[in-house]
Amino acid sequence: MNLFIQRHRRRSNPGAMPGTITVQPHAQAPQLDMITFGPEAPKGSITHNSLDSLDAMPPLPEHHDFLWLNVTGLGDAETLRAVGKRFELHPLVLEDIANTSQRPKEEDYESCSFIVIRVPDVASSTDEAVDGWSGKLWTRQIALCVGRDFVLTFQEQDEAALAPVRQRLLQQQGKLYQRGPDYLAYALLDAVIDTFFPVLEQYVDRVEELEASVMDIDPQKGISTVHAIKRELLALRRIFWPQRDMVSQLLRSESAFINESTHLYLRDCYDHSVQLLDLVETCRETTTSLVDILLASQSNKMNEVMKMLTIIATIFIPLSWIAGVYGMNFDPERSPWNMPELAWEYGYFTALFLMFAIAGGLLWWFWRKGWIGSKE
Amino acid sequence: MNLFIQRHRRRSNPGAMPGTITVQPHAQAPQLDMITFGPEAPKGSITHNSLDSLDAMPPLPEHHDFLWLNVTGLGDAETLRAVGKRFELHPLVLEDIANTSQRPKEEDYESCSFIVIRVPDVASSTDEAVDGWSGKLWTRQIALCVGRDFVLTFQEQDEAALAPVRQRLLQQQGKLYQRGPDYLAYALLDAVIDTFFPVLEQYVDRVEELEASVMDIDPQKGISTVHAIKRELLALRRIFWPQRDMVSQLLRSESAFINESTHLYLRDCYDHSVQLLDLVETCRETTTSLVDILLASQSNKMNEVMKMLTIIATIFIPLSWIAGVYGMNFDPERSPWNMPELAWEYGYFTALFLMFAIAGGLLWWFWRKGWIGSKE
Amino acid sequence: MNLFIQRHRRRSNPGAMPGTITVQPHAQAPQLDMITFGPEAPKGSITHNSLDSLDAMPPLPEHHDFLWLNVTGLGDAETLRAVGKRFELHPLVLEDIANTSQRPKEEDYESCSFIVIRVPDVASSTDEAVDGWSGKLWTRQIALCVGRDFVLTFQEQDEAALAPVRQRLLQQQGKLYQRGPDYLAYALLDAVIDTFFPVLEQYVDRVEELEASVMDIDPQKGISTVHAIKRELLALRRIFWPQRDMVSQLLRSESAFINESTHLYLRDCYDHSVQLLDLVETCRETTTSLVDILLASQSNKMNEVMKMLTIIATIFIPLSWIAGVYGMNFDPERSPWNMPELAWEYGYFTALFLMFAIAGGLLWWFWRKGWIGSKE
Amino acid sequence: MNLFIQRHRRRSNPGAMPGTITVQPHAQAPQLDMITFGPEAPKGSITHNSLDSLDAMPPLPEHHDFLWLNVTGLGDAETLRAVGKRFELHPLVLEDIANTSQRPKEEDYESCSFIVIRVPDVASSTDEAVDGWSGKLWTRQIALCVGRDFVLTFQEQDEAALAPVRQRLLQQQGKLYQRGPDYLAYALLDAVIDTFFPVLEQYVDRVEELEASVMDIDPQKGISTVHAIKRELLALRRIFWPQRDMVSQLLRSESAFINESTHLYLRDCYDHSVQLLDLVETCRETTTSLVDILLASQSNKMNEVMKMLTIIATIFIPLSWIAGVYGMNFDPERSPWNMPELAWEYGYFTALFLMFAIAGGLLWWFWRKGWIGSKE
Amino acid sequence: MNLFIQRHRRRSNPGAMPGTITVQPHAQAPQLDMITFGPEAPKGSITHNSLDSLDAMPPLPEHHDFLWLNVTGLGDAETLRAVGKRFELHPLVLEDIANTSQRPKEEDYESCSFIVIRVPDVASSTDEAVDGWSGKLWTRQIALCVGRDFVLTFQEQDEAALAPVRQRLLQQQGKLYQRGPDYLAYALLDAVIDTFFPVLEQYVDRVEELEASVMDIDPQKGISTVHAIKRELLALRRIFWPQRDMVSQLLRSESAFINESTHLYLRDCYDHSVQLLDLVETCRETTTSLVDILLASQSNKMNEVMKMLTIIATIFIPLSWIAGVYGMNFDPERSPWNMPELAWEYGYFTALFLMFAIAGGLLWWFWRKGWIGSKE
Repeated sequence: MNLFIQRHRRRSNPGAMPGTITVQPHAQAPQLDMITFGPEAPKGSITHNSLDSLDAMPPLPEHHDFLWLNVTGLGDAETLRAVGKRFELHPLVLEDIANTSQRPKEEDYESCSFIVIRVPDVASSTDEAVDGWSGKLWTRQIALCVGRDFVLTFQEQDEAALAPVRQRLLQQQGKLYQRGPDYLAYALLDAVIDTFFPVLEQYVDRVEELEASVMDIDPQKGISTVHAIKRELLALRRIFWPQRDMVSQLLRSESAFINESTHLYLRDCYDHSVQLLDLVETCRETTTSLVDILLASQSNKMNEVMKMLTIIATIFIPLSWIAGVYGMNFDPERSPWNMPELAWEYGYFTALFLMFAIAGGLLWWFWRKGWIGSKE
Repeated sequence: MNLFIQRHRRRSNPGAMPGTITVQPHAQAPQLDMITFGPEAPKGSITHNSLDSLDAMPPLPEHHDFLWLNVTGLGDAETLRAVGKRFELHPLVLEDIANTSQRPKEEDYESCSFIVIRVPDVASSTDEAVDGWSGKLWTRQIALCVGRDFVLTFQEQDEAALAPVRQRLLQQQGKLYQRGPDYLAYALLDAVIDTFFPVLEQYVDRVEELEASVMDIDPQKGISTVHAIKRELLALRRIFWPQRDMVSQLLRSESAFINESTHLYLRDCYDHSVQLLDLVETCRETTTSLVDILLASQSNKMNEVMKMLTIIATIFIPLSWIAGVYGMNFDPERSPWNMPELAWEYGYFTALFLMFAIAGGLLWWFWRKGWIGSKE
Repeated sequence: MNLFIQRHRRRSNPGAMPGTITVQPHAQAPQLDMITFGPEAPKGSITHNSLDSLDAMPPLPEHHDFLWLNVTGLGDAETLRAVGKRFELHPLVLEDIANTSQRPKEEDYESCSFIVIRVPDVASSTDEAVDGWSGKLWTRQIALCVGRDFVLTFQEQDEAALAPVRQRLLQQQGKLYQRGPDYLAYALLDAVIDTFFPVLEQYVDRVEELEASVMDIDPQKGISTVHAIKRELLALRRIFWPQRDMVSQLLRSESAFINESTHLYLRDCYDHSVQLLDLVETCRETTTSLVDILLASQSNKMNEVMKMLTIIATIFIPLSWIAGVYGMNFDPERSPWNMPELAWEYGYFTALFLMFAIAGGLLWWFWRKGWIGSKE
Repeated sequence: MNLFIQRHRRRSNPGAMPGTITVQPHAQAPQLDMITFGPEAPKGSITHNSLDSLDAMPPLPEHHDFLWLNVTGLGDAETLRAVGKRFELHPLVLEDIANTSQRPKEEDYESCSFIVIRVPDVASSTDEAVDGWSGKLWTRQIALCVGRDFVLTFQEQDEAALAPVRQRLLQQQGKLYQRGPDYLAYALLDAVIDTFFPVLEQYVDRVEELEASVMDIDPQKGISTVHAIKRELLALRRIFWPQRDMVSQLLRSESAFINESTHLYLRDCYDHSVQLLDLVETCRETTTSLVDILLASQSNKMNEVMKMLTIIATIFIPLSWIAGVYGMNFDPERSPWNMPELAWEYGYFTALFLMFAIAGGLLWWFWRKGWIGSKE
Repeated sequence: MNLFIQRHRRRSNPGAMPGTITVQPHAQAPQLDMITFGPEAPKGSITHNSLDSLDAMPPLPEHHDFLWLNVTGLGDAETLRAVGKRFELHPLVLEDIANTSQRPKEEDYESCSFIVIRVPDVASSTDEAVDGWSGKLWTRQIALCVGRDFVLTFQEQDEAALAPVRQRLLQQQGKLYQRGPDYLAYALLDAVIDTFFPVLEQYVDRVEELEASVMDIDPQKGISTVHAIKRELLALRRIFWPQRDMVSQLLRSESAFINESTHLYLRDCYDHSVQLLDLVETCRETTTSLVDILLASQSNKMNEVMKMLTIIATIFIPLSWIAGVYGMNFDPERSPWNMPELAWEYGYFTALFLMFAIAGGLLWWFWRKGWIGSKE
């Protein structure tokens, strides 16, 4: 279950020294990639180096003023410490990079602007159980450090969300390679935030499906399913709120690492964050009224059962009473007043007729009340 | 269904270059109209040109300082790019114009103030299904760019909402043709926002109808209908909130493209936006208590069924028992104590009398409890 | 019904020219009264002129620096336009004066401060239907324009709320006639706001009545009544919120038309607005828990019905079974094992005793469970 | 009932002159006490004078720079007017002093800072009805005017809450007598606010009692009780919110009558106000879930009743049918196929055995389902 | 019970002198420890002195510029007063230290910054009752005074949460001993706040357990359990909200006692506070929908019971009626029309067949309706 996304992550013990790097269990071994670029980089000069360690880092090529260093896998505290030393990262930044349960946030430090975002594990959310909602949405953390001439990214795994940006940079599409680290950071941010749209649309589809079939499904099971969806949406909302705040903070910040000209683009990013939040809230409100409908449907089923019982019992109870009366053993021989009907020639038929008349009358009455008219 | 208005719209892929123009499927081919006007335009000099392409754009006539270029149909990225180039629009503006799922917003750019509004498809909302609420409300996007001497409008289809403004301009009614682009933008905004009032009144009518008939309708179906209405209102609220914020932002903005003198008019516009929001919220709160009433009505119906069963069963069960007792076969010949009533002259009548007395007593008791008094 | 107070009012068509005066249907023909006053007006010199038209307006008497012009009835656009021209009112002000569905608000214009308030139709709210809540509360608009040396008031009908202020002015009670237009506007505002207190107290009485009788009334009908009250309170709240904001805005405004010395008095006015809002909210919260109680009461009635059925059925079903057993026709003559009880001398009495013993035992058990102990 | 605390208080008629003193019905005749003190007042020199009228006010003794004038009983407009004149109080202040239904507030005037607080009538809240919650909490108003060298207090009755402060002043305990009027005002405020703690603890006790017994009490009655408590808490909250705001305003005010050095103490006062609000909110949230539990408990009782009926009916209905079958009168003499069991030697015992077997089987089945296992 | 954490704490009587130290009942006798440190303290020179009284306090060793004085046990007002005098604490600070029911807060005084935090009694929350939730979470207060060259801590008991920090200081791990009192205060704060994470995870576990088993448990008991958990979460939230505000206030404060360089670290602390709040809110929202599920499950159980009754009754009531009909005593000898079936050769078998056919038909119908199909 993933009610609380950051559970089962290891965090530093209470009272540990601030800046302690606590490697998560099962974290991958780190891999480093380095891309250099710059406003005057000639076409085709952008290259992509995979590094074994930071010591192997080549110098920046000519006309390449900027550096994107990507670290995939946070399983080795030593590597993180080396990167931290090389780029003068604050110990608290390193602690937050390693502890992958951060909420999205933005923090200004002397050497860089530190950004945390979360990316959905798309695979997890599409792999759905047969009946009911599997509820396996999982998000991973990506940390960005935006400096004057570098961008660092730290991923738990190699996220597909970053691939298009890397490609645009390597193939020198658009002006991405000519702009600074802040624009690259924006491009990464934008790519990650947009990844949530298809994920969210699955929830929307699921909610609409439920809405369409709400009258047919078992209310009890339906409520559980709605509850599961709601919980997922709650988890998403807990990511989208701080994510929106983070982008808004970037937008208003006067950080030395974010140029004015990038603000226009961040505003677009902010728009998308708000749309995500908006969609989640709409979904949530819809699920809330789904619960109402399901409860009413449950109550309705009870009504139907009760009506059934009432119709059958109401019809047969008087008939049985008549049968009971003529089953009494009063002795007609002792007195002419004792059950003379029993000796009457058409007594039996009269009794049967009386019974069918009563049954018919009641049926007609129920039909007029709409209890059986609306059924067939 | 239209739970989430911007669904089934195509958006750029995550990671796409910012400013990518993604044409929506089924978007119409663009048509351009051009109207020129100005404070000193002589009476009757305002003309209306339909252009094939931007290249065919004639120069501004004398005394016509301002230009309104309207683009209907967003199906051709090339045309949008050409317009963008001619009026120096930012790539992000073009992206938002083409992606017609934007929430209402206002953004300042260097060359213009960019405004997005939504207009309801009135036809869709009036075309109502026979029973239940059809729920077909649909909104379309209109984008405005307000520059120093031009207004650009981009519509998905030719919206009827803009027609009165165009007519006032062409016929030189009022002072519209004498004022600048900001006042024209205000007039368009005002016309579009007011279009929502008749749409909303349909919901109000529908809610009031439901209120009037709430005791008679099937609760289960009623709750579904209320739910559908609520969802529509939710969708409207999701438009009205950002719309109000957008107008408020225009009102407070110190944009170079909005003159002080237009602020008074925008304040009026703001008032209308608030009234729309107010109406929607009132409708929503009313539907919420309708659900309460419907649930109570459902529960009440169950009560009635149970009362029916209880009355019938309570009356006949004792009677049947009496009939059962006198149907026992204890042998009166073996002992004088065995069922002497059976041999009594008036035994049968006494038994019948006893039964009717019990039934009558119970009926009186139920009547006194109000179980059957309130019925007839 | 009055769910949405401004319904059935005519508003300008979407796209109409701003400042268009749209006369409401059934609006009365206008009547003008003029009162002049001033800090140095000698005792007894205040007079009250009813004018046929604005042209007949006499010049201000000596020592009378200020003017109160009251227009009752908004049925003639021409008169409004004349007043607007004479006092240099903005076209939007005139539009809002004629369209009597405005929410309370305050707007600063060059020539005056424009204030809209609403006054309850007291008659409507006291005229109550026989059972249930009639729900006929109606409010009308009063518009005020406060200039440097004049106050204009525009009423739909002649409101009783303004009478005491007019009298104080004419009789030169207190210092009202010595102070400026802003203080007069405050006095009018205060009088109108205080009119809501007796109206609201009717709702309070009604809610308290419901609270006292909540156990006795029919839950279904009770919920409808509560719903109707809630709707009225909602409508009142929709007036009180913007009214409070309007007073607060006046209080904080640096308008040239409101003197500092009047702020102290407006603070008092603000206090009353807050008290009204407070009362409405308290009423609303109380009605919300009334619904809970009514639902519980409904559920309780169902419980009682079920208990009744269960008691009767549980007692008689075993008895009937015993009677059924001794009504079986096993032939005692074929075998001594076949129902020897039937031939036993005290068989009948034993059977009856058994039945009464079972019934008594069950009754005792129900009494011990509190099912019938708590009844009688 | 006290749903709306200020009901049945007389307020000025709408349209009355501002500053009109409206004496409440049943208001006591005023009594005046005067205490003088100052930073240099020698030990034992503090005295306490009861005055008949303001004219009898003695001059300040030497070294006594400050004055505390307390007015108990607000039944005489003349006295209030005299006090107002002597200390240059604004007419609106006098109006608010006499109208004892004010919410807590703070207002700055030229001559003084005017503070309204409310004090609970402790007696009322402890006097509890036998079953259910009596709901008799009542609060009274205390008005303070803090000037440069005086504090005026206006009470409806002689409040016990002020006694300890008066005693500390008279006995020159601590530094109270050496500090200025603002510190005295703080001390009075603090004393009054702390009076609410024991009152609130009664509610807490009551809620905890209900929580402990929630399974045993009658749900219907329980919900009414919870409702009554909630209403009281609502009334308290309506006092605590503005009270907190009032203290916060004092804290942030730059009034000439509140010294910087007193701010530290007011911060403490603010803390207590927040704690009161906090307690009330916690109580309210707890009562809300109590309603859930009570409704579930009610529903549970219904379940139990239904289970009872179902068990009895399900067991005996088949048995009765068997008895009915063997009570049929098919003639065995006409055909050997007609009910040969009746003539079988062990027929009766077989039938009885069959019945007991069915009954036993059903009981076992119910026990396995947990319907009767969990009972005993 | 611990609904209101600060209950059963003694507070000063209303009206008591501000700054009165009210020792709590059962408070421990105080113990003092003193640690001195400083930026230039040589390795191994940090010592830890336990003092009997403040008089025994040794002078600061050379190179030790800072002092941490820890007071464990607040049972002696005299000691508190002595500490207060020695470090020039304000009387209100001493009052708040002794009254251990404060909410987390931060207050600036002239001599120090005063911080109150709460620490959970971990033991209490793990000690869980057998069924249901024991609900024994208890928090204790820790007060910190951060001065220019000292930190004072006041604990009710010796809290384990502070131990790791003390150890890091004594063993000169990291740079803790080189930094000032503000960094030490941060380290203590951080340690205490992190203590809540394992506590909260117990609640998360418990909620997830409930979620997993929600279909199986008794709804009534389940709701009580959820209610108990909710109450605990409410209590935690009441600590986390002011705690977050307190850290935020520290972060934004321009106190002379908090250096700029410590702000980065406090930001980390703030992050953790927000995460705690976030977790609590998520838990609370989850419990709210658990109640929905439990109520639906309760309703479902009722449905099942009713279905059972309806099936049995509906099947046997018609059969019993047939048996009743053939138990009637119409005399076949008087008339050939009187019950000729009784004399028919295959009458009995036909009747039995009819009964089984009806029963079978009804069973098939119920199965088709899904009433018994979904059971087995």
